[in-house]
Amino acid sequence: MRIALAQINPTVGDFDGNYGKIASFYERATAAGVELVMFPELAVCGYWPADLLEKESFIARTEETLLRVAEVTRGDGKPAILCGAVMRCDRPGEKHVRNVAVVCDGGQVQFVQTKMLLPFYDVFDEQRYFEPAQQQGLTMIKGQPVAISICEDAWNDKMFWPRQQYPVDPIEELMKQWAVLPQPLSGNRIILNISASPYWHDKCEVRYRMIGALAKRHRATVVMVNQVGANDSLVFDGASFAINPEGKLLAQSHGFVEDLVIVDTASSETIPFAEDSEQAEIARTWDALVLGTRDYLHKSKFSKALVGLSGGIDSALVAAIAVEALGAENVTGIGMPSEFSSEGSVTDARELAENLGIRFEIAPVKEIYNRFEDSLTPFFAGTPFGLAEENLQPRIRGTILMAVSNKTGALVLTTGNKSEMATGYCTLYGDMVGALAVIADCYKTEVYKLSRYANRERRIIPEETLTKPPSAELRPGQKDTDSLPEYDVLDPIVRAYIEDYTSAEEIAAQQQVDVELVRRIIRLIEINEYKRQQAAPVLKVSKKSFGRGRRFPIVAVR
Amino acid sequence: MRIALAQINPTVGDFDGNYGKIASFYERATAAGVELVMFPELAVCGYWPADLLEKESFIARTEETLLRVAEVTRGDGKPAILCGAVMRCDRPGEKHVRNVAVVCDGGQVQFVQTKMLLPFYDVFDEQRYFEPAQQQGLTMIKGQPVAISICEDAWNDKMFWPRQQYPVDPIEELMKQWAVLPQPLSGNRIILNISASPYWHDKCEVRYRMIGALAKRHRATVVMVNQVGANDSLVFDGASFAINPEGKLLAQSHGFVEDLVIVDTASSETIPFAEDSEQAEIARTWDALVLGTRDYLHKSKFSKALVGLSGGIDSALVAAIAVEALGAENVTGIGMPSEFSSEGSVTDARELAENLGIRFEIAPVKEIYNRFEDSLTPFFAGTPFGLAEENLQPRIRGTILMAVSNKTGALVLTTGNKSEMATGYCTLYGDMVGALAVIADCYKTEVYKLSRYANRERRIIPEETLTKPPSAELRPGQKDTDSLPEYDVLDPIVRAYIEDYTSAEEIAAQQQVDVELVRRIIRLIEINEYKRQQAAPVLKVSKKSFGRGRRFPIVAVR
Repeated sequence: MRIALAQINPTVGDFDGNYGKIASFYERATAAGVELVMFPELAVCGYWPADLLEKESFIARTEETLLRVAEVTRGDGKPAILCGAVMRCDRPGEKHVRNVAVVCDGGQVQFVQTKMLLPFYDVFDEQRYFEPAQQQGLTMIKGQPVAISICEDAWNDKMFWPRQQYPVDPIEELMKQWAVLPQPLSGNRIILNISASPYWHDKCEVRYRMIGALAKRHRATVVMVNQVGANDSLVFDGASFAINPEGKLLAQSHGFVEDLVIVDTASSETIPFAEDSEQAEIARTWDALVLGTRDYLHKSKFSKALVGLSGGIDSALVAAIAVEALGAENVTGIGMPSEFSSEGSVTDARELAENLGIRFEIAPVKEIYNRFEDSLTPFFAGTPFGLAEENLQPRIRGTILMAVSNKTGALVLTTGNKSEMATGYCTLYGDMVGALAVIADCYKTEVYKLSRYANRERRIIPEETLTKPPSAELRPGQKDTDSLPEYDVLDPIVRAYIEDYTSAEEIAAQQQVDVELVRRIIRLIEINEYKRQQAAPVLKVSKKSFGRGRRFPIVAVR
Repeated sequence: MRIALAQINPTVGDFDGNYGKIASFYERATAAGVELVMFPELAVCGYWPADLLEKESFIARTEETLLRVAEVTRGDGKPAILCGAVMRCDRPGEKHVRNVAVVCDGGQVQFVQTKMLLPFYDVFDEQRYFEPAQQQGLTMIKGQPVAISICEDAWNDKMFWPRQQYPVDPIEELMKQWAVLPQPLSGNRIILNISASPYWHDKCEVRYRMIGALAKRHRATVVMVNQVGANDSLVFDGASFAINPEGKLLAQSHGFVEDLVIVDTASSETIPFAEDSEQAEIARTWDALVLGTRDYLHKSKFSKALVGLSGGIDSALVAAIAVEALGAENVTGIGMPSEFSSEGSVTDARELAENLGIRFEIAPVKEIYNRFEDSLTPFFAGTPFGLAEENLQPRIRGTILMAVSNKTGALVLTTGNKSEMATGYCTLYGDMVGALAVIADCYKTEVYKLSRYANRERRIIPEETLTKPPSAELRPGQKDTDSLPEYDVLDPIVRAYIEDYTSAEEIAAQQQVDVELVRRIIRLIEINEYKRQQAAPVLKVSKKSFGRGRRFPIVAVR
């Protein structure tokens, strides 16, 4: 069977735009001669619509658009479509919609498979909205039987996962049905999977291994098409592929771009899996952050961004990402030195801006700061310099950035990293202001790796920025290490606690560090929950990022 | 059967504190002579623990504490306990914990009933964590059969609700089991329900009606004990009660305070239901906001609060609530006039502060504002006064408030109302700063009603504040009605859209307003999602508040 994997980038709720992409990819696939064109999960409405699914008009428009999609398959010899959508269900005691994979052929909807396994962990809330399938069945497309599944349906193989998340395995059920098909239909087992599977570290590798194991176990060709593009915090990497019953790769699409790839399930030609490496993962992270930034702005109809440039590595990396995402002409850097800023803070920022070819302006903080002190006399008079005075500086900077944003229509990109966000080493309404927290799911040690990656072709981030000790420069001679351990000590502690819920004692043993240090870090993480709940949306690149996939109370004894 | 309804206020994760409350209420109930003491859902760990349930140590401490609770029932003639907790379950394909009601008697756990209906809508995420019960069974306490249910288990009666949310009704199932009990056991039907049912408008009335209908339908006495106290955004009103098989009230506890009430299920003495009224609902809303504010601060170990006083009604109401919650000596008001502030802005604020007996200070904005303009010259020079200049003023105020907060250890209370939050008539990082958004689930028209309620005993909020036209005072002569319709037109539109997902056309017809106006308001609501996602936690008092119960994408075409 010749199948086109139409890896499109839908926008949530952009029914006309999404339909346009589906129709145009369908046309290209038709010209290439295929029997089936596969589109991702919820392709018609875009993933993730969240509570828009509660709106009657949203469901109605999804259903209308699905009928338009079906219509494009009308006509002799035209390929079928397999496409994700939502459909109503109205039985008492059930949720009001289902997440469905729809086969359209000959101008009509021919078959509907409801998603059975609804993820309800981390960022996923599918059980909030969708009624799960009670059963699944094989169907025929162009005379060929196929097993259709939606994303998570393929993620519960008991032979692959040490622990099953769900009591049933829809793929196993479908393959039991296949086993009793008459010859010759039972010959070529084909499992189709339409997905909206977001990127995070190592996810791509897991998909290959898991689907490969599934293909071998069931002696089936598995074809998986994944959404590409970012919607809010989630970046979908695409990276669609097909694997044959020997677990060999038949075809794959590019990551982080729209792509159309054609696979013949009967082909004996296979391609090698790319060697994976830490460097490849850094490149994917970079691509995810670039795509996440571009889609956040462009899908919201913004073209320009602002970055506060401190001369430090975080803001330098964010500016570099912004330039790749939006173009140098659409990025402005603003230096906002205070009396505690080093000379390097401006010279390094200026050098970065020159390397990137972006506009750079200076908006000084000192005079504003002095007037705040005057105004605050009733509360500040006679008190020593402390946290209040330190935080005033980033809050003035945040206000400057937002003023320029309001004046120019450019969105502010937040520059904090995950190590800071975790430990609260950041100022709410200060350096935390912005529309999008570009690197807030990257630990400081990753920020260095990504910055070196930014410099892979030519020097963009200045040497000084890469080598000087990190400092918030909010008091004389301040260094990050006054408050925190070195980042190569801190980051593994934070990661183990946040991503794996490892206990203090286990972390101390694993990392060979003092358990009291670990407890201090954990306490910092916990008491700073209030800051993160008011943070800008964070581009997710790890399995556990700050944001809606991590739901902790603020008021709690820990 | 003599039962004590122990309506306690637990703190999430405060195992020792929660145990202490359980032991002390148990002791009081024992002295009063009862056979059973009922505590709320998840009383051992506090509701709502959210992702703390992912932490092994949290589950372990809950289980340990439950054993301590069981221990207090050891000894001759001591009453049994029915108490909420979480317990592990380790079967493959299942979630790792269950939400349970545990009967402790004679120093041991005697019976465990798992919650069957797990709410998954609005603020509830229980399916994220808990494995539901597959079945429920009657048990015996002190020789008396009882049917035990947990909160939502009692909320799916097909005779009461027009639409069932779940395919099963655990109460109906339990009553079927009751029907086949031998005489004389089958005589006195008792349904016990332990709840953590948060307050919102009319919820208390719904509970009475629904439980009353259940009691009559099943000819049972229903005893419901509810958590009291606030944890983050959710305020639990308590208001526990018992209803006899005729639907008459046997006992009820006070709302919004800890309480111990004893009921004899065989008693023939009933008490009348209180007449409900709009005024009673306003009083409950007030109590909810006071309790929500007090618990947010006190459970976080803060005692003091700051409020920016503009002379307007929103900040006046928040200050009045803060004083009732925390005491006048713990509240400070700060007036921050800019060049566009009316004279009344300071005089009305000062009068309010005097009426409340709180400290009041002035921190002027004008000089700071001028220095910002200087610093912003590269971007502002030659441009007309506009949104950027307007927003600068509240952002300076936000920065002043946060500086005083950092200096004095007082938390900032945010003063925005729901009408503003909905339409985006508020400044991110400006008037939106703060630890807790006290009245952000109250429409402006409700703010007036609550303010009149604040003045019920003596004049607290000045007459001028109550009568002058609302204005943000960010440019000369500005009025809210320059940008928005009158609040008595706006609020019903916002409410219908946010709380009931009503379409623009239906709202226009219902409210007799121009559909284009409705569309403009809906558009404002939708495009301002980005502000709300960075807002302070909102005390929930309506069925749909901003915050985690309302999950919309920022990037979407609507």
